[in-house]
Amino acid sequence: MSLSEQVRASIEAHKPALIETLFRLLRQPSVSAQGLGVAECAEVLRDIMEEHGIAARVIPTAGHPVVYGEYPVEGATNTLLVYGHYDVQPPEPYEAWISPPFEPEIRDGRIYARGTGDNKGQLLTHVLAVKLLADLGLMPKVNLKFIFEGEEESLSPSLPAFLREHADLLRADAFYAADGPMHPSGRPVVFFGVRGVVGIELVARGANRDLHSGEFGGPVPNPAWTLVELLHTMRLPDERVAIEGFYDRVVPPTPYERELLERIPFDPEEVKRDLGISAFAGPPDLSWYEQLMFQPTLTISGMACGYTGPGVKGVLPSEAVVRLEARLVADQDPDDIFAKVARHVRRYAPDVEVRLLSRSAPQKTSPELPVSQAIVAAIADAYGVEPVVKPVLGASAPSYLFAETLGLPVIWATYANYDENNHSPNENITVECFLNGIVASALVFDRVAKLDPAQLRS
Amino acid sequence: MSLSEQVRASIEAHKPALIETLFRLLRQPSVSAQGLGVAECAEVLRDIMEEHGIAARVIPTAGHPVVYGEYPVEGATNTLLVYGHYDVQPPEPYEAWISPPFEPEIRDGRIYARGTGDNKGQLLTHVLAVKLLADLGLMPKVNLKFIFEGEEESLSPSLPAFLREHADLLRADAFYAADGPMHPSGRPVVFFGVRGVVGIELVARGANRDLHSGEFGGPVPNPAWTLVELLHTMRLPDERVAIEGFYDRVVPPTPYERELLERIPFDPEEVKRDLGISAFAGPPDLSWYEQLMFQPTLTISGMACGYTGPGVKGVLPSEAVVRLEARLVADQDPDDIFAKVARHVRRYAPDVEVRLLSRSAPQKTSPELPVSQAIVAAIADAYGVEPVVKPVLGASAPSYLFAETLGLPVIWATYANYDENNHSPNENITVECFLNGIVASALVFDRVAKLDPAQLRS
Repeated sequence: MSLSEQVRASIEAHKPALIETLFRLLRQPSVSAQGLGVAECAEVLRDIMEEHGIAARVIPTAGHPVVYGEYPVEGATNTLLVYGHYDVQPPEPYEAWISPPFEPEIRDGRIYARGTGDNKGQLLTHVLAVKLLADLGLMPKVNLKFIFEGEEESLSPSLPAFLREHADLLRADAFYAADGPMHPSGRPVVFFGVRGVVGIELVARGANRDLHSGEFGGPVPNPAWTLVELLHTMRLPDERVAIEGFYDRVVPPTPYERELLERIPFDPEEVKRDLGISAFAGPPDLSWYEQLMFQPTLTISGMACGYTGPGVKGVLPSEAVVRLEARLVADQDPDDIFAKVARHVRRYAPDVEVRLLSRSAPQKTSPELPVSQAIVAAIADAYGVEPVVKPVLGASAPSYLFAETLGLPVIWATYANYDENNHSPNENITVECFLNGIVASALVFDRVAKLDPAQLRS
Repeated sequence: MSLSEQVRASIEAHKPALIETLFRLLRQPSVSAQGLGVAECAEVLRDIMEEHGIAARVIPTAGHPVVYGEYPVEGATNTLLVYGHYDVQPPEPYEAWISPPFEPEIRDGRIYARGTGDNKGQLLTHVLAVKLLADLGLMPKVNLKFIFEGEEESLSPSLPAFLREHADLLRADAFYAADGPMHPSGRPVVFFGVRGVVGIELVARGANRDLHSGEFGGPVPNPAWTLVELLHTMRLPDERVAIEGFYDRVVPPTPYERELLERIPFDPEEVKRDLGISAFAGPPDLSWYEQLMFQPTLTISGMACGYTGPGVKGVLPSEAVVRLEARLVADQDPDDIFAKVARHVRRYAPDVEVRLLSRSAPQKTSPELPVSQAIVAAIADAYGVEPVVKPVLGASAPSYLFAETLGLPVIWATYANYDENNHSPNENITVECFLNGIVASALVFDRVAKLDPAQLRS
């Protein structure tokens, strides 16, 4: 019997207990944004880890605690740092849930509760795999370290300092995490990078108060027009960003990345139908995935001024606000991009205020590294199908913190069903996805254990 | 004793009764937007008019009623139609009022209540002047007709049909009304025109739902950018409107209007200081008043899309909305301008929806007409100071309905103090302004009575 088959057989034998352990974790609320039950959940998770043979402890941070665990294996040379987060999104609106968000329930083969997919159900697979492998006497020769944070849904404010302070403790050869949904086709996804993001607010001001648009409209500056003209200067006719130096450090895809990119299933007509659009946007010479993975964007994510409510109000607004969001790709730097946007604003509309709202760097690990290939192979083994391999994800994640602070290759997989409803009511993970995740984690540990240490650290 | 002196003496003798009559009208709420007490107020006003010798009646409309009155004078050849509105703005926020909005109170020489300035206190001066003149045996030989509507604060929806249906009843030689505040210098204002307005909403749509800006930002159309680029095409670098044909029917000021315009007191530094701006906007070759009186504008009065609240939300908005307001001058036509804006949108952003929200035509009466000059002279007599004469007001009013439907010259004066707080809490009129208004109305009646009928109708 292959390792995969032995693990599956053991999962089949222990199914109720495995699901009950997940239920235990799901029953404990841990809403970081609302400070609801997070510390209590850290203790539940630590207890579960201890019961599964992992030396675990709760480490305080400036915010919600990190649950850290170690599973050293005698004779192992390779160390994998496994990341996850035990905090969850706020469950509101409660009334949209068919069963209460913190009372897990199985219906039609799916486990419903807040955090099933994002991320309690996925992080737990790593923990369960450890005990299962150990009980079978099949634990691969790899040292495991676990870092499960409690602030991911609140943008990980304490994580940078935590990583810096505990860099020695966290020393490893690679980073691995399971988070996010699978491809709509049902194939798991492995991804090697994320885009960064800079959130910017621009505030234009006119008169010191809202004015009657009839009595003052014309000779009094209108901040909405100021923003319109300023925003116009930020785009070229082909929809590229016109801010000087914006593309300076953009790294084009390597031939291998381009190959991966072309292998991702993509049906443009189906995507258009699903989104209700008749055409795609962006530079016409760039494909959907090239734009999302290898091109920065400047998105208007919000605009507000004056009055747009019911009826008519003849107002000349005193202030107009726009939110911009630049998604960044390797090797762009959020601070550098913010400085360039600010310089552009100073040049074209010097009275407009520029505020930095958020920042997260892009990060990309080479998919050609031995550890990258090993994890893709493990996931393929576990599911009996090639994963969808994405060089980069369009979204952002704290990957760069691990890459920069700890110097690790950072590799992610997704174990949850496509329709996990993360961040929405009726979040769920199918029982099948949950149990398959345990197999996937076991095979990832096994493949990483077998990597040549010299190659792993190259 | 001059007529002015005799009227003043009589006012002095009857002061408490005059103020009590105003209190009676103010105590009856009449909030047209909320349907609060409007019908009751029409009856109170009718009773007051009857008590003052005016044959008055309440005439229903599709909305709130009109109070109509007649005061025919034996042997009079000239007829003046006097307009006003007895409805008021909503009083909210109640807690901002020092004394309750419908319990009038005098403090420091000011009468505080909703509607004191806008418009009950001003319309009542006409009614009070009639009885006062009659009691003195000094009623000038002029037929008076009164039309006091109950929907002005709700944009007069029933007025057009009312004027058409009752055109015979309302037959007159000129329109006169007192509404609005005086110039900050304390001088009354006489104005001969108003700007029109077209309220337009543009709605741009992207995907059929809000999307994650990281996972979709780039290749999915962003309706906010669509609006920015569309709005940009609507303006020329000198801030003139770039919509084809927008200025086609704009009539430049006559030499006399330009002379009036130059006589209006204007301290640019004081205006900038008051508004907190460092420079004026609009075409640099046009003065403040030329812009406000003789130039159309295209104001962005509202913008909304995505998220601009606390924290950060990475959203690619599915919809973006902008409210535009074109203020129009003679002889622009709101429907024509709307059609031109819609055509512009079809050309530059054909998928953007264009909605007409409101329309009101511009209107301008010649300040050189004998009746125009007569009223300016009457106001100058009443106040002992030249009024500030404005050929056009920047704001809009239903003047065009009277000019178009009834074929009347339309002339407005302002009797309320500059700081009347109309549309705001603690609305007030000074006792002095209220009583001076009675003198002004009396002298206006007298001057119109003395006009040569042939000249009046020329």
